[in-house]
Amino acid sequence: MVKVGIAAYGTTPFTKEDQKIESVLHKSTKNLFENNPKIDKNDIDAVLVSTNNNSKYLSPILSEMMGIQPKIAHSIESLCNSGTNSIVSACSYIMSGLADMVFISGAERYDSPGQILSWDNSRGEFKHPIFWASIFTKSYKREFSISDEQLALVSVKNHKQAKENPNALSNKTYTIQDVMNSKKLTDDLKLLDCSQPCTGSASIILATEEITKKNTDNPVWITGIGQKTTSAGFTKNETFSSMESTKLSGQDALKMSNHTIHDIDVAEVHDAFSVCEPMALESLGFSDYGKGMSMINDLYETNNFKINPRGGLIGSGHPLGATGISQTIEIAQQIQSNSNKRQVDDANVGLVHNMSAAATSSTVLVLEK
Amino acid sequence: MVKVGIAAYGTTPFTKEDQKIESVLHKSTKNLFENNPKIDKNDIDAVLVSTNNNSKYLSPILSEMMGIQPKIAHSIESLCNSGTNSIVSACSYIMSGLADMVFISGAERYDSPGQILSWDNSRGEFKHPIFWASIFTKSYKREFSISDEQLALVSVKNHKQAKENPNALSNKTYTIQDVMNSKKLTDDLKLLDCSQPCTGSASIILATEEITKKNTDNPVWITGIGQKTTSAGFTKNETFSSMESTKLSGQDALKMSNHTIHDIDVAEVHDAFSVCEPMALESLGFSDYGKGMSMINDLYETNNFKINPRGGLIGSGHPLGATGISQTIEIAQQIQSNSNKRQVDDANVGLVHNMSAAATSSTVLVLEK
Repeated sequence: MVKVGIAAYGTTPFTKEDQKIESVLHKSTKNLFENNPKIDKNDIDAVLVSTNNNSKYLSPILSEMMGIQPKIAHSIESLCNSGTNSIVSACSYIMSGLADMVFISGAERYDSPGQILSWDNSRGEFKHPIFWASIFTKSYKREFSISDEQLALVSVKNHKQAKENPNALSNKTYTIQDVMNSKKLTDDLKLLDCSQPCTGSASIILATEEITKKNTDNPVWITGIGQKTTSAGFTKNETFSSMESTKLSGQDALKMSNHTIHDIDVAEVHDAFSVCEPMALESLGFSDYGKGMSMINDLYETNNFKINPRGGLIGSGHPLGATGISQTIEIAQQIQSNSNKRQVDDANVGLVHNMSAAATSSTVLVLEK
Repeated sequence: MVKVGIAAYGTTPFTKEDQKIESVLHKSTKNLFENNPKIDKNDIDAVLVSTNNNSKYLSPILSEMMGIQPKIAHSIESLCNSGTNSIVSACSYIMSGLADMVFISGAERYDSPGQILSWDNSRGEFKHPIFWASIFTKSYKREFSISDEQLALVSVKNHKQAKENPNALSNKTYTIQDVMNSKKLTDDLKLLDCSQPCTGSASIILATEEITKKNTDNPVWITGIGQKTTSAGFTKNETFSSMESTKLSGQDALKMSNHTIHDIDVAEVHDAFSVCEPMALESLGFSDYGKGMSMINDLYETNNFKINPRGGLIGSGHPLGATGISQTIEIAQQIQSNSNKRQVDDANVGLVHNMSAAATSSTVLVLEK
């Protein structure tokens, strides 16, 4: 099988700035090429744009801005996991031989139309993601006898970790009491339990083994890929306290990479809301069901950044189309021992978990040296 | 190399109806499964939606409506060649081994936001495609001494051919004089020189050789793929009387399929406006530069449906995200000798040409038995 490597990456800070989507895309693209002067733009066979923005033809627009004339050029949308859908698509172009080098840029504005689940009429007026997150939180707390205070630790931990990430939206730390006292949004969610929409972009180049090695001395390989969509509306879920699509994607990605979950040294999981982090850890097999918060507690007490080292979505911010790419870049940097104060010890094998719309769809990637 | 086959397809009539995009997508999907009862939905690994519609998460929505739980699910957008971008992406998933069977549905509403090139500020107020088409038409007429009356034959021919296509938007025939007398839109374009936006959908299933043969007794294979994006804004084109991205895509697709243009028995070319048909024929190598209208004239006089048998975009209508898929279905039907009164004799090898935004981006596919 053709080996797919990460040849280069770039990112912008995640902010609340009001910028045109073309400018946002351009910034992380520029950052990538400035940091990787060896990359020859003429070698780029495909340019994929990951976004929920309504602007059309963004891949040719970005290509023209950067002086690239690709064969393959289009935008990809799947709400919050658009980024990893684009990465998997890039892997398929390379593995199929249709491309040797694929440039992917994900970007979003703070006012992304992907934040409102306007298509799901079963929700009535409750179309903001906080409503499914409230149902998940209530269900999880009830099933596993977990308190709001316990869940608040996810936000405390991820804001602490984000403080070491210069590109994160947040640079503040909070206590459990701060989270509990933050604005009450629903019976089960406070403001600090939620990731925030923001403006940001992340870009990555994937390539064949030969081209990857030509462009970096510190290659990271994508060795496991798993994806699953179980439905569109979350009310089709069998339970509201675990993530079926995450479980199935994780199993496929680990199998493809010949690893078990015990081999994973570092992971980005999709903590759109506090409850999502323990649920994802359990569905991926990092811990037994109902025991995710124990694991998170242990990591926090030992100052271990293993889960969501860049601060996750809660600490970093959540520019939808960029998130999956930003997660992948973080894991690549960890494996390259290039994460400064966020560095996890002995990070040889890493995992990315990116999902959409109440985990109705998930992607899991395994990355390694 | 893994062989990619067409296992099934379905379509809707192209109309001016006001329907929700989800309903439009659903109709051709339903048509596909009704016509192909052997297809097992559980075998579908990927669902790709091709559209310019602003609705999000359409692939999971369509999947849920149809009872499919795919691994891979997202939307793809590249203006008017979104359809063939989706087909090439599906080929890559199959060729890479990440999927064995991919379902693709393209759909658009008559009021698609992809019809206005709102991103191109170099156009000033002139953001409707008729403005680039006018410049192309003026340039082509001047360079090759072609008259408006000569170009009008494209519309006469394609409306005639569309009359034999039960799904076409148009079922009327016109004379050269009718085209010349139709509403004048610019100095160089009359209403009947233009394809019309419309509501419609087309769906196709691509699969590995084994699965294709299991599902159809009359398989058609995609043996050539070529894609190229030269820019986003058309003012970067070196000339306004030929199509560089089409030329390069055509060369790549023919090379991959081990064919020359002389082997092509039937073709769908992207006649968004009259002038596009001779320009595309010339850039693909069907005729010398400036001689496209002679070829079209010969075909018309001998009642030969070789070019745009379903009536092209001018006769069939142009629901952006569905167009490339509809073109591909037409060529598959021709190769299967399944085109009734539109059937071209000895149609063994066929070609699809689908492009975006003044041919700044093109896809060419070669299909054969």
